[in-house]
Amino acid sequence: MRRQFAVIGLGNFGSQLALELARRGAEVLAIDGDAGKLDAVKDEVAHTVRLDATDKEALAEQRLAELDAVVVSFGEDFEAAVLTTILLRETGVRRIIVRAVSERHERILQMLGVNEVVLPISEAVTRLSTTLMLTGVVDSFALSRDDTIAELAAPESVVDRTVGEVRFREQYGLLLVTIRRVVKVPQLFGLLDRTEERILGVLPPEARIERGDTLIVFGPKKAIEKLAG
Amino acid sequence: MRRQFAVIGLGNFGSQLALELARRGAEVLAIDGDAGKLDAVKDEVAHTVRLDATDKEALAEQRLAELDAVVVSFGEDFEAAVLTTILLRETGVRRIIVRAVSERHERILQMLGVNEVVLPISEAVTRLSTTLMLTGVVDSFALSRDDTIAELAAPESVVDRTVGEVRFREQYGLLLVTIRRVVKVPQLFGLLDRTEERILGVLPPEARIERGDTLIVFGPKKAIEKLAG
Repeated sequence: MRRQFAVIGLGNFGSQLALELARRGAEVLAIDGDAGKLDAVKDEVAHTVRLDATDKEALAEQRLAELDAVVVSFGEDFEAAVLTTILLRETGVRRIIVRAVSERHERILQMLGVNEVVLPISEAVTRLSTTLMLTGVVDSFALSRDDTIAELAAPESVVDRTVGEVRFREQYGLLLVTIRRVVKVPQLFGLLDRTEERILGVLPPEARIERGDTLIVFGPKKAIEKLAG
Repeated sequence: MRRQFAVIGLGNFGSQLALELARRGAEVLAIDGDAGKLDAVKDEVAHTVRLDATDKEALAEQRLAELDAVVVSFGEDFEAAVLTTILLRETGVRRIIVRAVSERHERILQMLGVNEVVLPISEAVTRLSTTLMLTGVVDSFALSRDDTIAELAAPESVVDRTVGEVRFREQYGLLLVTIRRVVKVPQLFGLLDRTEERILGVLPPEARIERGDTLIVFGPKKAIEKLAG
């Protein structure tokens, strides 16, 4: 069966999410009080409904409890987000995800029993600051205070060796998650070759690291720094 | 030597980033045209300067080329972000990171030669939609169209077995990155035990999976769906 979602609040985040879920094959109900915002997504999502999501009766008519999840995305209007969230809980919605703006909002939502809070800005800040503090790292994603998933240019010391030979865990205390590689895509009719970045997927021990590869590794920040050299 | 950064534009993203970098030990120069915004960060960052970052001479006086990186975060004012970016390039800044609002902005910045563009909303949308489409998955992070890093509750089929025994790659085509586990933290003086979530780090093959663990795995979405059951 198709996954069914509602997205309430079609600002920047909500409208992008509604479209993305629809493109991935989900049946999306988009809800907003503004007809113009509904118009912008109506050709791609399954249903649009114009209503005030802080109005209990209007919300109750939508049978949201039958959906797989409801996402609330009101941006700066935190009061409305809280009110709608409480109404959704009373309606028996299984899974409520709320987009918050600050960590203070996140704490309040958690006190209301909402376990899934999305904080786009804070997540991006954590990620970028980790990347900037780890020299030689292209991109990173902190899993905890110590452990990070980081992308870094393959250092000369591992180039031309197989994953099994390098023994990342034993030598560096790291896990090699995968490799990002730029590959040439041959073109028909004598056109110039195009290049394309590929994620190599789950690697067998015999996969060989090439010069120019980007390694995606998991482990302590200090170990990643050490491998980066 | 301490890492040195400038953050230009102290909106929601810029101010959080400046503070986070300072807390991690970097020397941060915070720049904005608004004295109030500078006031809000001045106790925690190394330097604050009030100036119009689209003014070439004012910007040139800041010796930004000597820093490790400069982050431009103007939110909705894309014209100012583009202008400042061009000025920073002319000044010889080594690494310029720009916060963009839409993928259209990202494309324009790439045409200007900026390779590091941060798109907090789009990243959060991709992540949340992947999580929602993968049933049973707590959280996810797409690395490519097919491959994802996902968190999922340890299925009964792997509980009480060691990582080496399960052979994730051979059996499921997946890589087990690490485990998130809730552990009891004993308290002194007869207080109630507290629980805490821990990331177990890089796992040896003899690590044992427990009931209630959250597995963090990397691999194709279909393989993750299959493991989730």
